[in-house]
Amino acid sequence: MSDQAPKTLVAQGGGPTAVINQSLVGVVQEARRIWPGGAVYGARHGVRGIINEDFIDLSQETQASLERVAATPAAALGSTRDKPDAAYCAEIFKVLRAHEITQFFYIGGNDSSDTVRIVSERAQADGYALRCVHIPKTIDNDLVENDHTPGFASAARFVAQAFAGANLDNAALPGIYLGVVMGRHAGFLSAAAAAARSFPDDGPHLVYVPEKIFEMPQFLAEVKAVHARLGRCVIAVSEGIHDASGKSIAEQLASTVERDAHGNVQLSGSGALADLLCEQIKQQLGLKRVRGDTLGYLQRSFLGCVSEVDQREAREVGERAVQYAAHGGRDGSVAIKRIGDYQAGYALLPLTAVAGKTRVMEPHLLSAEGNDVAPAFLHYLRPLLGAPLSPVGRLQAPAVAKRLAKA
Amino acid sequence: MSDQAPKTLVAQGGGPTAVINQSLVGVVQEARRIWPGGAVYGARHGVRGIINEDFIDLSQETQASLERVAATPAAALGSTRDKPDAAYCAEIFKVLRAHEITQFFYIGGNDSSDTVRIVSERAQADGYALRCVHIPKTIDNDLVENDHTPGFASAARFVAQAFAGANLDNAALPGIYLGVVMGRHAGFLSAAAAAARSFPDDGPHLVYVPEKIFEMPQFLAEVKAVHARLGRCVIAVSEGIHDASGKSIAEQLASTVERDAHGNVQLSGSGALADLLCEQIKQQLGLKRVRGDTLGYLQRSFLGCVSEVDQREAREVGERAVQYAAHGGRDGSVAIKRIGDYQAGYALLPLTAVAGKTRVMEPHLLSAEGNDVAPAFLHYLRPLLGAPLSPVGRLQAPAVAKRLAKA
Repeated sequence: MSDQAPKTLVAQGGGPTAVINQSLVGVVQEARRIWPGGAVYGARHGVRGIINEDFIDLSQETQASLERVAATPAAALGSTRDKPDAAYCAEIFKVLRAHEITQFFYIGGNDSSDTVRIVSERAQADGYALRCVHIPKTIDNDLVENDHTPGFASAARFVAQAFAGANLDNAALPGIYLGVVMGRHAGFLSAAAAAARSFPDDGPHLVYVPEKIFEMPQFLAEVKAVHARLGRCVIAVSEGIHDASGKSIAEQLASTVERDAHGNVQLSGSGALADLLCEQIKQQLGLKRVRGDTLGYLQRSFLGCVSEVDQREAREVGERAVQYAAHGGRDGSVAIKRIGDYQAGYALLPLTAVAGKTRVMEPHLLSAEGNDVAPAFLHYLRPLLGAPLSPVGRLQAPAVAKRLAKA
Repeated sequence: MSDQAPKTLVAQGGGPTAVINQSLVGVVQEARRIWPGGAVYGARHGVRGIINEDFIDLSQETQASLERVAATPAAALGSTRDKPDAAYCAEIFKVLRAHEITQFFYIGGNDSSDTVRIVSERAQADGYALRCVHIPKTIDNDLVENDHTPGFASAARFVAQAFAGANLDNAALPGIYLGVVMGRHAGFLSAAAAAARSFPDDGPHLVYVPEKIFEMPQFLAEVKAVHARLGRCVIAVSEGIHDASGKSIAEQLASTVERDAHGNVQLSGSGALADLLCEQIKQQLGLKRVRGDTLGYLQRSFLGCVSEVDQREAREVGERAVQYAAHGGRDGSVAIKRIGDYQAGYALLPLTAVAGKTRVMEPHLLSAEGNDVAPAFLHYLRPLLGAPLSPVGRLQAPAVAKRLAKA
């Protein structure tokens, strides 16, 4: 460590969430408290802001402003999809040294944790005293060794509220409703649609996740069976569903495929998957009133749909990260562990335990048939969603005797 | 009128909304209060439920159940897209006579008001004593002679919250974001996206409504200009935008077009329009990170996004309808009028004043350029949205001096 007052740098990476700013504010407030003579810098647009020395001095931010920012969705510092390689890291260090940064906090998903790992290893190799802590964030809930990740629960709440409403709409004007949910490899967010159900025949009646191979004939048979039973069908589908060869159904469709710096195919921001699946249902099953929605960016950014449990935990992982940096004695990734039913505990994992790895839904969270969640998933999800969803009512009045009995 | 106790029939038609059940419950509660010895029937799935004698006896519904139903989105009785012709009406009367119905309340949009008109005229022609009252409902806000319609404000609130979040997301990961909003002929709901702005450079930066002719070259030039100025652009587009010949841009795209019983092209339930416009921006402007969402059915059904002003007024139009039926002395359509700033007044319009007519945005509500709303629209909309949207914060901290000044 330098003899000078500690200098903290914080940045945000990857897709924004409803609560990533809670983690940012947790870092800023705790760093200002623990290192009162130090500085707290924020890099604008993630690692790109570091190599560009695009810093703002968060030591000069008011508490009032920080609290407003904490309650605001998306990433207040700006984000990036850049993934640093060795050369990129060399640029990062040049800047960190020049600014005498001693603590680096990066809030992001598994790609971002890999960035932190590379930076940490590079710092050690260069003999530069830098404490690096990764702070988890992802609506996909796909970080290994975490019970769940900040951002997931608020997005899950959005998905549940969306499907609860879509189910009611579909019951009023019966037909097929299909909603495509974010999730490339992990189906957690799509599975959250199941939390929309309260009455026994509520939708979604079918849930398809990337953990299961998607077979079109089986899908169509399952839709047909639900429609025959209920006269309607509500379906939740992950954008990442794929065939037995591993090729995503969305990718099979797209004439031109857009990839980000991590090599990921761009799945969101297009309604193509929903449209194709609806077309199949119309053509193969001859059903009418087939409607598809792609929930899109609203899932991670919608203003005013947030789990207060998620907010609280996102704030605390930021605070914990600073505590670990001050007292933990090593670099790492903050993780949320489940203690009891329900309490959140926190741990500092080695960066290599998390970085670049992808958690998917454990088999016991899915139904044996592969087209629904298991009760264990609902038990897992419920405490994360925060306040109960708005209660939903149904008319219970008895039928009136027919007098003409024409129909 | 029959010597017997009055018999009330209520039904819901057209697209569901977040508050149409408030109007239903307003009718039921007020009818039970005013005609205590009478019966209150509900027809399941609108006029189709009438010809099928598919009635439930709402006299036997508890207050607790009614209040739960009132707070539930979609249409608790079920809805329909059927539009009765003369033959259909003959069937309706056969059933109404057989059940000795004396009051008929139909909650719906301008298609439904036309149904009520036909039924009312038929009843008069047949000398059957039937009081018919249309109760307004539509997220499109397209009923003439109404300041606004129940259901619009809650959908508008959803659209505003969606664009507020999308704007923040777009600022964090800059690029182009385009959201397609419901609205076939009237742009009110798309215009509500403008209520998402709080900072001067907040999106949506461009708003396109069906009231203005959509020209692709002009659209692309406007997107390019905003992107050049801000490095990003958020765009709200009505699904009903059309070219100078009146042909909708969505319809130009669709290889096969689905029409409902009213001859309306099915515009919702597909992401095609957003995808086409994004493709144009990518190809013609060469911009990266172009993302399109279609807000879809969530706009009218999302659970837990509601304007309490809308809820209150939707309840009252139901209650007023019963009051008018009991004391108004003629058939008609209930309308909301604006009194002062802001109070809602109510009136009973002749059915012919509303039925089958479509209101569009008045010119003074739109900017002269035709790609935004005018301040008058924001003034008009704000009191309808209910509680203020969640406040949004931005970091205000000063920049840190560069030490390497590479970039």
